[in-house]
Amino acid sequence: GRKVLIVYAHQEPKSFNGSLKNVAVEELSKQGCSVTVSDLYAMQFEPRATRNDIVGCLHNPEQFNYSVETWEAYKRGGLSSDLVEEQKKVQEADLLIFQFPMYWFSMPAIMKGWVDRVLVQGFAHEFPDCYDSGLLKNKLGLFSFTTGAPREMYTKESIDGDIRYLLWPMQHGIMHFCGVKVLAPHICFAPESVSEEQRKEMLTAWAQRLKTLWKEEPINCSSEWYFK
Amino acid sequence: GRKVLIVYAHQEPKSFNGSLKNVAVEELSKQGCSVTVSDLYAMQFEPRATRNDIVGCLHNPEQFNYSVETWEAYKRGGLSSDLVEEQKKVQEADLLIFQFPMYWFSMPAIMKGWVDRVLVQGFAHEFPDCYDSGLLKNKLGLFSFTTGAPREMYTKESIDGDIRYLLWPMQHGIMHFCGVKVLAPHICFAPESVSEEQRKEMLTAWAQRLKTLWKEEPINCSSEWYFK
Repeated sequence: GRKVLIVYAHQEPKSFNGSLKNVAVEELSKQGCSVTVSDLYAMQFEPRATRNDIVGCLHNPEQFNYSVETWEAYKRGGLSSDLVEEQKKVQEADLLIFQFPMYWFSMPAIMKGWVDRVLVQGFAHEFPDCYDSGLLKNKLGLFSFTTGAPREMYTKESIDGDIRYLLWPMQHGIMHFCGVKVLAPHICFAPESVSEEQRKEMLTAWAQRLKTLWKEEPINCSSEWYFK
Repeated sequence: GRKVLIVYAHQEPKSFNGSLKNVAVEELSKQGCSVTVSDLYAMQFEPRATRNDIVGCLHNPEQFNYSVETWEAYKRGGLSSDLVEEQKKVQEADLLIFQFPMYWFSMPAIMKGWVDRVLVQGFAHEFPDCYDSGLLKNKLGLFSFTTGAPREMYTKESIDGDIRYLLWPMQHGIMHFCGVKVLAPHICFAPESVSEEQRKEMLTAWAQRLKTLWKEEPINCSSEWYFK
């Protein structure tokens, strides 16, 4: 059975994001996948990148450099236990799903903190092993999120711009950088502005997509996909 | 005298980002500006958007909706004191400077948390008062940041793409959305990979730019600036 990690960021279990997460757990489990959820708010996950992420002495206590210190700590097995725990989940996963409401053209800070703190050098990338040779190659990644504004607001011509513009830092700058192959995003536009009936259809569509997810080809994650 | 708020995210006072922040405080103060710094790590600023941001009863305790609850709380004066404090600083400022090291094609989570929590509906935007009519119009905004990779990595043709691609969610999706007029970003490329001499030149260049900053015209913050 394949392994899936869902990194989930919503405060409210009864939210539409919560339902999308539940649908994924249910459908993927039904397929025989083993599904793990990192429910970031419920875990009170720490988003701040600080000295507390390193156990024991610092490599250079005179001048704290977060990326150097976490890289060194990773190599000697000295990262804090919450990070080690998340890295284990990532390591075992064949697929990473990020489920969140879009906040300010991006992911909520609590999820950005997961990225900042978990995907450390040595674990997720190691120059020159980045992009196609990133250390998380052979894994798949998928961003599943909700927006406040409707679909027609996210076109090249509208003020919010093409939805793909804002996917660049997340899909390319994070996932592709670590070698993860990116599946097409799953976007539920403005669920709060539609009828209960339409919300149910959105949940069904997500369940349907998941049924054949493993047959999907990753996108060609280069600048053409985003900006051409 | 003009008022400037520097939102600053680095753990280490002796870092290059710390020096850039100090240069700005010094130069702007010399001009007679009143400068306030929100030193996010030193403040242990909370990045997580939770129920704790609302004092007293919720608008809908049955199903927690962060944006609705903070909007309602703002209107009745019921936001937590750390947010009220930051909003006061924003309200008084003529210019917002964001000083940070780039983390994953974006700002560090602690700064994203400042954006997620401080710029609430009713305070920073209120439909249809967004973009050019956003509630923070008549303010200027500037992103000043450092990168790990050198300048030549951030071109249209290179794998990291044009540096402007990753500015879209921050400059357009956050600042422009709130009506803030965006000044050209100030980017110090790969300060950790250059000589001490070159780092000093970068600090001098920043001080120089600040001398005539108030005469600068904002960029034309539309998709053409980023993607054409």
